[in-house]
Amino acid sequence: MARPSGRQPDELRFVELIINPNKYAEGSCLIKCGDTHVLCTATVEDKVPVWVKNTGQGWITAEYGMLPRATGVRTDREAKKGQSGRTQEIQRLIGRALRAGADLRALDGFCIKIDCDVLQADGGTRTASVTGGFVALYLACQYLKKAEKIKKFPITQMVAAVSCGIVQGVPVLDLDYMEDSNAGTDSNFVMTSNDMLIEIQGTAEHGAFSSPELTALMTLAQKGIRELIEKQKTALKIE
Amino acid sequence: MARPSGRQPDELRFVELIINPNKYAEGSCLIKCGDTHVLCTATVEDKVPVWVKNTGQGWITAEYGMLPRATGVRTDREAKKGQSGRTQEIQRLIGRALRAGADLRALDGFCIKIDCDVLQADGGTRTASVTGGFVALYLACQYLKKAEKIKKFPITQMVAAVSCGIVQGVPVLDLDYMEDSNAGTDSNFVMTSNDMLIEIQGTAEHGAFSSPELTALMTLAQKGIRELIEKQKTALKIE
Amino acid sequence: MARPSGRQPDELRFVELIINPNKYAEGSCLIKCGDTHVLCTATVEDKVPVWVKNTGQGWITAEYGMLPRATGVRTDREAKKGQSGRTQEIQRLIGRALRAGADLRALDGFCIKIDCDVLQADGGTRTASVTGGFVALYLACQYLKKAEKIKKFPITQMVAAVSCGIVQGVPVLDLDYMEDSNAGTDSNFVMTSNDMLIEIQGTAEHGAFSSPELTALMTLAQKGIRELIEKQKTALKIE
Amino acid sequence: MARPSGRQPDELRFVELIINPNKYAEGSCLIKCGDTHVLCTATVEDKVPVWVKNTGQGWITAEYGMLPRATGVRTDREAKKGQSGRTQEIQRLIGRALRAGADLRALDGFCIKIDCDVLQADGGTRTASVTGGFVALYLACQYLKKAEKIKKFPITQMVAAVSCGIVQGVPVLDLDYMEDSNAGTDSNFVMTSNDMLIEIQGTAEHGAFSSPELTALMTLAQKGIRELIEKQKTALKIE
Amino acid sequence: MARPSGRQPDELRFVELIINPNKYAEGSCLIKCGDTHVLCTATVEDKVPVWVKNTGQGWITAEYGMLPRATGVRTDREAKKGQSGRTQEIQRLIGRALRAGADLRALDGFCIKIDCDVLQADGGTRTASVTGGFVALYLACQYLKKAEKIKKFPITQMVAAVSCGIVQGVPVLDLDYMEDSNAGTDSNFVMTSNDMLIEIQGTAEHGAFSSPELTALMTLAQKGIRELIEKQKTALKIE
Amino acid sequence: MARPSGRQPDELRFVELIINPNKYAEGSCLIKCGDTHVLCTATVEDKVPVWVKNTGQGWITAEYGMLPRATGVRTDREAKKGQSGRTQEIQRLIGRALRAGADLRALDGFCIKIDCDVLQADGGTRTASVTGGFVALYLACQYLKKAEKIKKFPITQMVAAVSCGIVQGVPVLDLDYMEDSNAGTDSNFVMTSNDMLIEIQGTAEHGAFSSPELTALMTLAQKGIRELIEKQKTALKIE
Repeated sequence: MARPSGRQPDELRFVELIINPNKYAEGSCLIKCGDTHVLCTATVEDKVPVWVKNTGQGWITAEYGMLPRATGVRTDREAKKGQSGRTQEIQRLIGRALRAGADLRALDGFCIKIDCDVLQADGGTRTASVTGGFVALYLACQYLKKAEKIKKFPITQMVAAVSCGIVQGVPVLDLDYMEDSNAGTDSNFVMTSNDMLIEIQGTAEHGAFSSPELTALMTLAQKGIRELIEKQKTALKIE
Repeated sequence: MARPSGRQPDELRFVELIINPNKYAEGSCLIKCGDTHVLCTATVEDKVPVWVKNTGQGWITAEYGMLPRATGVRTDREAKKGQSGRTQEIQRLIGRALRAGADLRALDGFCIKIDCDVLQADGGTRTASVTGGFVALYLACQYLKKAEKIKKFPITQMVAAVSCGIVQGVPVLDLDYMEDSNAGTDSNFVMTSNDMLIEIQGTAEHGAFSSPELTALMTLAQKGIRELIEKQKTALKIE
Repeated sequence: MARPSGRQPDELRFVELIINPNKYAEGSCLIKCGDTHVLCTATVEDKVPVWVKNTGQGWITAEYGMLPRATGVRTDREAKKGQSGRTQEIQRLIGRALRAGADLRALDGFCIKIDCDVLQADGGTRTASVTGGFVALYLACQYLKKAEKIKKFPITQMVAAVSCGIVQGVPVLDLDYMEDSNAGTDSNFVMTSNDMLIEIQGTAEHGAFSSPELTALMTLAQKGIRELIEKQKTALKIE
Repeated sequence: MARPSGRQPDELRFVELIINPNKYAEGSCLIKCGDTHVLCTATVEDKVPVWVKNTGQGWITAEYGMLPRATGVRTDREAKKGQSGRTQEIQRLIGRALRAGADLRALDGFCIKIDCDVLQADGGTRTASVTGGFVALYLACQYLKKAEKIKKFPITQMVAAVSCGIVQGVPVLDLDYMEDSNAGTDSNFVMTSNDMLIEIQGTAEHGAFSSPELTALMTLAQKGIRELIEKQKTALKIE
Repeated sequence: MARPSGRQPDELRFVELIINPNKYAEGSCLIKCGDTHVLCTATVEDKVPVWVKNTGQGWITAEYGMLPRATGVRTDREAKKGQSGRTQEIQRLIGRALRAGADLRALDGFCIKIDCDVLQADGGTRTASVTGGFVALYLACQYLKKAEKIKKFPITQMVAAVSCGIVQGVPVLDLDYMEDSNAGTDSNFVMTSNDMLIEIQGTAEHGAFSSPELTALMTLAQKGIRELIEKQKTALKIE
Repeated sequence: MARPSGRQPDELRFVELIINPNKYAEGSCLIKCGDTHVLCTATVEDKVPVWVKNTGQGWITAEYGMLPRATGVRTDREAKKGQSGRTQEIQRLIGRALRAGADLRALDGFCIKIDCDVLQADGGTRTASVTGGFVALYLACQYLKKAEKIKKFPITQMVAAVSCGIVQGVPVLDLDYMEDSNAGTDSNFVMTSNDMLIEIQGTAEHGAFSSPELTALMTLAQKGIRELIEKQKTALKIE
């Protein structure tokens, strides 16, 4: 089987992480995974949501949006119709994923909001948002530490995400839109730098999948996420 | 480790499936999994959503709601504030799960809506909705077949769901609310009668989980879902 | 004229009041009036609405909802479209009715919310909500008194409600859905244990009604409400 | 007991009905009942709501609004927060009342919308809306008949409305705002020119009321509505 | 070219300013510019918006609405669908215009809300709202000064507004609806008593306009606004 | 007076127009005016709004949005709270401006939607949206002509926009955010390649402005818009 892009089954798309493209945000990252482009900005606020008040913790949350013509067919602007269930599902996932990489106690009194806005979509926007959003979060934590607003650097481990799927019977890594549309199974993995799972979402769109198939996808995901975390480290200039 | 309910790690809660408690619906099921009670009703409509028109297929969809005092602390009525992201996420999951058990072509021209309303919640409301909702769907398909509105019986395999999690380091089956609140990891599995996965959602709320831990949870889930499918068959009086 | 149900003109439907079916609520009642089933739960909150703050009074309020397939034809979920005018009209009526049976000064600092959710509808859902909701309110007041959160028991008189109407020229008590659809006049009465009116809502859907006809309906209502109050007392095990 | 306005217990406020103050509407009436001023406009549309299509009938409906400073304390604009339950309850009442005075079959194919906008409120805005709105409806029917768009004049009887209440133990007619605030009981009556009831809404805000008290209020209402119908006829120049 | 109304190119419509038609408002004015009738009421509130708190200033704001049948074809009620972009644009303009005529520091601690509700529309409703709203504002300031709630009278200069346009090549003053529909260019001018511009909004609906044409419209506007300010002074009985 | 940026009073910011950065849109342009960056995409739809059906015309419309962290202080996402009045005002202006440069009859049957999304804001986002949006529109018209979906090229003249204002008494061209915040007067001009005005919006935020001052701003605007149109032509490679 040949992939439409000519990639090997276990090959990521070309990934680019542009640091601080936004002049106002406390941290920002433009991530390009092939033709999927997501602008991630981090905003530090010195007040926390009600449910973390007086718990000795800070908070990290995410919002997700897509420009109307990020897609082949224009989608209506959510500002006119409200956020869809899909959008809310995605931004809840991103928030959970990012929180898993930080010690919230080190952020006591602060809330970091990560906005992930898709400028162009070609599959895998939610996983790109996690990977790029984590870089923006890392930069915002550096900003807080450098400004001596917090004592301890809150990041405890790197976090990245990737999708895998079974296309025409073959497990492949990092699906683009064309593959995603034809995949029997589509799974999103969020993992840490020490190979631990934070989140797994697997859905059989056409036909179910077996337990060994899930294991095969997980192996692919591990490989891809290790590579993505290397790219995050290079962009952030950390060892 | 002793579970709060005294159950074994691989033991389901007491499950009861009451057939057709509603006098109007084309199929209905009140499912009780311990103290989690969900009323599932199936409505047959003879028109389909726009995106399945002229495709030779019918459609199955689900909606989910929770009575305000289904929970220990009253939650505001969604009729007053709109459906939350959590609600939309859950009803999309239920819909995907149910569709996986049916041949939509056999439903050409019909849409079956499954309403899952939680009367009382004690953990696992989304998986109970899948298991009970599938019974309501099955009954509605029997109604359609008996009334000779469709030619072929659309159900292709039984579908049920259960949650598993790691509580104090031990993988356990079918978490109740108290366990769910303390679980490091919470995973929902939707599977078919032939042990195939339809959907898996795993989230690490506190601490990540390894690949072998995921495998352990899956094994538990398989056992639980086989038992739930037996109970569905008994209630429906099928072999 | 024979009624569809075979009842006498002044005969109530079979009424059942199930006490505390909900494990969380401070008081709850499942009322069944024939095929009309309403689950009523009482929630005690220790804060009051703005307009009763610092007045030395507490508050009692009600909310009303209907499950989508409570009716012969499925109705859209209000969580998706907002509360209809009919719903708001009904829940305002229930609230006023319940407040009339209590001394709000004895509830100073507390708000009791009565949620009335119709599981199945066959006419008379708003009057069943008043009758069943009052039982839930009574139980919540007992809870507050027993927990010594209030000094004086707030209930001053029993409150129940019933509908009457003129069907094919004959005044009848407690209309079911089929009768309600054919009634020229439909009136709802809320009364107390000492035969006083709290609320009357009379509407001529087809043809107007005269003053003597209104008197005839009121006499029927008095008889029915006395019987309903007896049933409330039996269920609550009060004299 | 002296009424604040110096009126007799059975005395209406000064009523003025100004015909066609609006240059665009197919019929309009500015009604002044003391300091309560409501502008009623009738709009004829040549399409009917879905539920009357192909029934051989037309439709009459009403909408109600209040200018922000119609009241002593400014109320927020409903355009900013949506229609309240009270507004919806009132406009449903007005619509039912007006339909009772017309033969809808004579309006086949047409919908008449009556907009009742309160310019200044001093109690009794819903009953003034019915009385003034009926005049606007009458004028719109004359317009349709004169333009030969309908064959038969649809109005079958005159309809008007008034409120009564028990203030300091005395039944009084046509409450203004100060009386309304102090009334133990507040009832709205809609009646026809032949003394028949179309709608009665009685509420005990403070203390319940007995059956004889209701009869006393009804007698007052009858007297008041007869006078209002005389004023409608004079304004419309019909005998 | 003859104008439909027979007016000269530089002639205003007949203008009437009725002072304090509303019994509750702290100031009110019913302005009639030909068949355009706008009821303007001023409400004084003793709290200010968040963004002026602790700035030593008060605030002036405006809201705008139109009765459904103010127009030839009925428009849907904004209470049912929310405020349109046009409405928000207009009320923002009115607010800015009114604030330009007052010293906000003299209003410290107070917010004056001007409600402009169009009873009947025949072109120029936003400019009539500014001219009439300013009279209501003036009266409310007199009320505050007389009640000794403020020390200094806040009005610093008179403010009025008018529209001009180019109809069939001829610049004309104060367009009515028929002219407005046919104008190539439509401009709204807000000016002060000393001939200074506060706001200009010029739009070419059909064909663009040159710089000299803009100058010609401004000259017309100056003449009209001087006359309108004279009428404001006469109505307010100020020199 | 020195401008913060060191520019001359009549000097534009550095302008960059990047052609077709989006792979899906029928035309797109990323415009950078200093630190104001707006992504403009054109979508061609083959259906028109209701009000242009059967008029022999097509339509051009615009929508405007701002990413949450486009600004120094993060603004809430409009998808969560609905479009503000400011947003609606701006997108209506952009739409009117773009339509003025095209012959809508040449677009019969087509609607072109221009989405203007602000990635980073530093003053003048609405005028940058007009200038960049016009380039996207031009490209979409080229696409339609090349694909032979239309016969005549619809663009009749170039359209661009710029803001001017009076800062510390000096009229200056193309305000950035810091100047805009301090300007006494802020005016937006939309003009065509033949020096004609399409729209002018002038507002005195602090202090009014005279007729000669308006003329001075218009002269500056003319100069700036001529330069912007040259840049549009260079980017589009037209003479």
